[in-house]
Amino acid sequence: MATTTRTGQPFDRAALESLMRRRMFYTPSFEIYGGVSGLYDYGPPGCALQANIIDIWRKHFVLEEDMMEVDCTMLTPHEVLKTSGHVDKFADWMCKDPKTGEIFRADHLVEEVLESRLKGDKEARGQKVDVDEEDPKKKKKKVKEIKAVKLDDSMVQEYEEILAKIDNYNGEELGLLMTKYDIKNPATGGALLPPVAFNLMFQTSIGPSSNLPGYLRPETAQGQFLNFQKMLEFNQQSMPFASASIGKSFRNEISPRSGLLRVREFTMAEIEHYVDPEGGKKHPRFEEIKDVTLSLLNRETQLAGKTDVEAVPIGKAVETKLVDNETLGYFLVRIQQFLIKLGVDEKKLRFRQHMANEMAHYAADCWDAELLTSYGWIECVGCADRSAYDLTVHAKKTGAPLCVRETRKEPLRIEEWQIDLDKKKFGPKFKKDGKTVEAAIDALTQDMREKLSLDLKNDGKISVDVEGVANGKVELEKDIINIEKRTRVENVREYTPNVIEPSFGIGRILYSLIEHSYWTREGDEARGVISFPPMIAPTKVLLVPLSGVSDFKPLIKRISHRLRALGISNRVDDSSASIGKRYARNDELGTAFGITVDFQSVKDNTFTLRDRDSTKQVRASEDEICAAVQSLVDGNETWADVAGRLPKFEQQELE
Amino acid sequence: MATTTRTGQPFDRAALESLMRRRMFYTPSFEIYGGVSGLYDYGPPGCALQANIIDIWRKHFVLEEDMMEVDCTMLTPHEVLKTSGHVDKFADWMCKDPKTGEIFRADHLVEEVLESRLKGDKEARGQKVDVDEEDPKKKKKKVKEIKAVKLDDSMVQEYEEILAKIDNYNGEELGLLMTKYDIKNPATGGALLPPVAFNLMFQTSIGPSSNLPGYLRPETAQGQFLNFQKMLEFNQQSMPFASASIGKSFRNEISPRSGLLRVREFTMAEIEHYVDPEGGKKHPRFEEIKDVTLSLLNRETQLAGKTDVEAVPIGKAVETKLVDNETLGYFLVRIQQFLIKLGVDEKKLRFRQHMANEMAHYAADCWDAELLTSYGWIECVGCADRSAYDLTVHAKKTGAPLCVRETRKEPLRIEEWQIDLDKKKFGPKFKKDGKTVEAAIDALTQDMREKLSLDLKNDGKISVDVEGVANGKVELEKDIINIEKRTRVENVREYTPNVIEPSFGIGRILYSLIEHSYWTREGDEARGVISFPPMIAPTKVLLVPLSGVSDFKPLIKRISHRLRALGISNRVDDSSASIGKRYARNDELGTAFGITVDFQSVKDNTFTLRDRDSTKQVRASEDEICAAVQSLVDGNETWADVAGRLPKFEQQELE
Repeated sequence: MATTTRTGQPFDRAALESLMRRRMFYTPSFEIYGGVSGLYDYGPPGCALQANIIDIWRKHFVLEEDMMEVDCTMLTPHEVLKTSGHVDKFADWMCKDPKTGEIFRADHLVEEVLESRLKGDKEARGQKVDVDEEDPKKKKKKVKEIKAVKLDDSMVQEYEEILAKIDNYNGEELGLLMTKYDIKNPATGGALLPPVAFNLMFQTSIGPSSNLPGYLRPETAQGQFLNFQKMLEFNQQSMPFASASIGKSFRNEISPRSGLLRVREFTMAEIEHYVDPEGGKKHPRFEEIKDVTLSLLNRETQLAGKTDVEAVPIGKAVETKLVDNETLGYFLVRIQQFLIKLGVDEKKLRFRQHMANEMAHYAADCWDAELLTSYGWIECVGCADRSAYDLTVHAKKTGAPLCVRETRKEPLRIEEWQIDLDKKKFGPKFKKDGKTVEAAIDALTQDMREKLSLDLKNDGKISVDVEGVANGKVELEKDIINIEKRTRVENVREYTPNVIEPSFGIGRILYSLIEHSYWTREGDEARGVISFPPMIAPTKVLLVPLSGVSDFKPLIKRISHRLRALGISNRVDDSSASIGKRYARNDELGTAFGITVDFQSVKDNTFTLRDRDSTKQVRASEDEICAAVQSLVDGNETWADVAGRLPKFEQQELE
Repeated sequence: MATTTRTGQPFDRAALESLMRRRMFYTPSFEIYGGVSGLYDYGPPGCALQANIIDIWRKHFVLEEDMMEVDCTMLTPHEVLKTSGHVDKFADWMCKDPKTGEIFRADHLVEEVLESRLKGDKEARGQKVDVDEEDPKKKKKKVKEIKAVKLDDSMVQEYEEILAKIDNYNGEELGLLMTKYDIKNPATGGALLPPVAFNLMFQTSIGPSSNLPGYLRPETAQGQFLNFQKMLEFNQQSMPFASASIGKSFRNEISPRSGLLRVREFTMAEIEHYVDPEGGKKHPRFEEIKDVTLSLLNRETQLAGKTDVEAVPIGKAVETKLVDNETLGYFLVRIQQFLIKLGVDEKKLRFRQHMANEMAHYAADCWDAELLTSYGWIECVGCADRSAYDLTVHAKKTGAPLCVRETRKEPLRIEEWQIDLDKKKFGPKFKKDGKTVEAAIDALTQDMREKLSLDLKNDGKISVDVEGVANGKVELEKDIINIEKRTRVENVREYTPNVIEPSFGIGRILYSLIEHSYWTREGDEARGVISFPPMIAPTKVLLVPLSGVSDFKPLIKRISHRLRALGISNRVDDSSASIGKRYARNDELGTAFGITVDFQSVKDNTFTLRDRDSTKQVRASEDEICAAVQSLVDGNETWADVAGRLPKFEQQELE
């Protein structure tokens, strides 16, 4: 997809990828063993960047909102994920070539084959095939050659309609498409077996006797749900509250692609915010953010085959029910604020509502924060309303009371039909069937009870259906049963909270952020720059001695130590490369500032401070420079502020 | 094991465990499903404590020493761990009861049975069985009953000798012990099968076709080794350097016990410091720490069956070769400094050298930092010299150049016997065997070459053994071959670095630290206090309004916001419990300070600040109190400093 950099240049993914490998932002895992697709290691700058993103996430959400962070295990026993629905439903569709043994992800295969046929059609019609239309995310293309074959106009339309909703087909439907459009192994032309579900969880056994099957968790959420009771207790029984967790999750992709965007092991940060389902899921801080505007792509627009976003203040979006409730709306805004704090380009951010058949099995409503990259719009944060699904299924399975019990302010008075049995007569009459009959009576609905009370009044007896006893009906006389309308008073309310879940894919955010921050400096040779905000930059300051002269060493050491004591990460580059080269290397690493030590520094203890983005420099005393760096890194001042108050330095040969 | 608290009280593990569960430091994972042994979740205070320990680790090691942090995947393909030796050697010995299907860890079983017999012997002799001698780490004891049976004196001695070296037996030896001493299933008396190796790695399959077997990593180290080349490149080819990694590793324990100390999934922080094996493995900063004294328990002392530690300045320890080299010594000191910074009790810290047969398969030398807990001395940090083992095996397997090439300051001049072949005659003579013959000639040692040069001189021809060619010998005349002594000049030196690996078990450190920090406040009822240093405390400040009066709310909100902006974590407790109860709860959580808002605060904006350990209070203005808290949390002042300069507050009823 053709995107542009923050400076309006055409975005060149190959150049950025080369930079990221050269500077070890990330690297394929086990590369000297040939690598394993979908697994990547973060090198020093990637790792520092990730740590900074997580640090800001923790401050922005956990500290700011008083959330309770927990750290649960990745190993998860089968039973838990069976209950949660993942064993049965967390799957993609794959089909196998029985001859070659090759395995294809069914939806990707249909997509690629139809796309290549459409391209072939364009060629046959003599139309230009736009390079940008080729979806570059398919690194390992199954379809290697495009054959110029003209299609019927109606067929072109059919293909396009299928591609527009390719995410929504189930396995059977994909199988039908493959039969209808004769989709086979593109390399050999061999027939494929029909799609079967492939569960995406990694399986293992816990303990020595292999009798406890388990999985690597597909999300951090389940561990949080299972601890609900303890956390409610920790929060002194007070609602609403949120738990949060940061950690790795796993997904055994059929055929990973798109670099860091679709991997088999990834860091997630997830929040489970528990809210009372009654009263419209209000949020106490909604008032503070109700005027913030979000770019929303709603469900209806998508169903109409369009992608127009609407800029709506969240207050209005909730008022009109476009966004279901305040709590969901509050988190959408907080997600946007977080992403912008990281340095994401606001123009490349939208919130897309899930369509009904697209949502995960547990979700009642869901909005994704999507970031525009050269791979298209990428889901980076999901914000789902999981309703009471998870707590309910786990409570049902285990009998644990995963619910809230709260004293009602006003006792609840309920008018209801109650049934009394005379146990002394009831027991002898039904003997061993007593319990079954009693259960059937307890299960009678209020409507039934009302009707039966009339029968009893009129006939002096009633007949109740009881499966498995006598001929399926039992009679009860009025000396045994009594049905009366009474008022019951309930002082305690018991309910299962609903869950609003903002779920962050840290690796996807990290990659998209790099794309949004990357540009090239024009000049004799184009040089890559990654303009991370100082707070996010892997390294804050590069310390550069003008040359290898030994007089510079103690100054470098002192400043490095001083910055470190202020918690400001810095690195020294005392290599023999020119200052310009050393700065260029660090522009690629996104290092925010540079401090140069020169002969003047030795004389008067002044230093130059260089801004990565503008390459402008100021010169001031050690104290002033260190204070300025701290202020810049903490976000209290911008470079413009600092450049406005400290003397400019214009010795151009340093670049 | 009987230990005492920091205040000299007898340590009560049951009380601390109850506190840790009540306050949700940790909790068994999946407890509502019955739990899985060896898996624990950290609740909010445990999670915050862990994050603080990791944060200090990162500053103390990664930032302070300019290490390169990386984040590698946990999923690891079979081939990598086959090469590293883990597939073959990372195992414990287990034996199975063929009747019941029960599985025992062989060394633990032998240990427990012999110990119980020794206790039975004591009872039979009418000696008191000291409760403290019972090893409380065996939570799920196999041996439930102690039978009072007297043993021969010689048998008692044999048992004691076996127990002293129980960690050193292999599977066959354990099997022999079991036969010799008639060790069976303690519950049923049934015979057990001989011990077999059980690999401790969790196995899984990567990808849909199950054709790529893999494991969850048992250590973070392998990922770091595989990236060696790229990191050397990132470090601009400069040696020495270190990589570091923080993350989860896995160990499928046969029968986990001892709570957080032996678990199946755990956070590690590991450093791989690469050093030139030549020149005695010096460290550039060794001079700075050479006078620091460590408590060392060396190999010889242990072999003599003793546990006396020796306090030795590291400079002397390296000089006398007690600690092998400067780099190893430097890291031992840095480890000690880190642990003390966390709040570990220095008197409960020792460094124990591994015995030869105890070391991991890759280690050349190893010292463990051990912390004394109620479970005995616990290995919390290992510091191993892995020599060139890992880089060598991976390079050999993959062909990747995992080595350093550096230009020699002085070119190396090597006198050697060189062989020239006249290719024009050689080729036609040997035809298809040419390559084989040439390889055999290339492989000739210097000694052989010298001898052959004499043969050539004397006979005009030589005879060389070449397997598979002619009858295994070929003749070469002097018109084809020439052997001469010449001088070769080597400008580049190539070597495989050695690795010094400090490896931290974060969970074990965390648990031991809690034991070292815990004590009870005497009084009407004993109350637990966990005296974490402020820097480590999960929450720094508790904000307590005197009562529910609404005037207090804006003040609490303002201070909370202000502290948060300073990066100081704080929580509000506005529950209706008494101030004393609210403080007691937070003493158990290790919250370092308390700020009380009372009616005086509303009038003059002054607040009381309470110290957790002494329960003493001072009163001052908002600015002064916030500044004091920051200074205390950053470690710039102690409570004594603050109490010395701010007015004391003595309203005793607040406690």
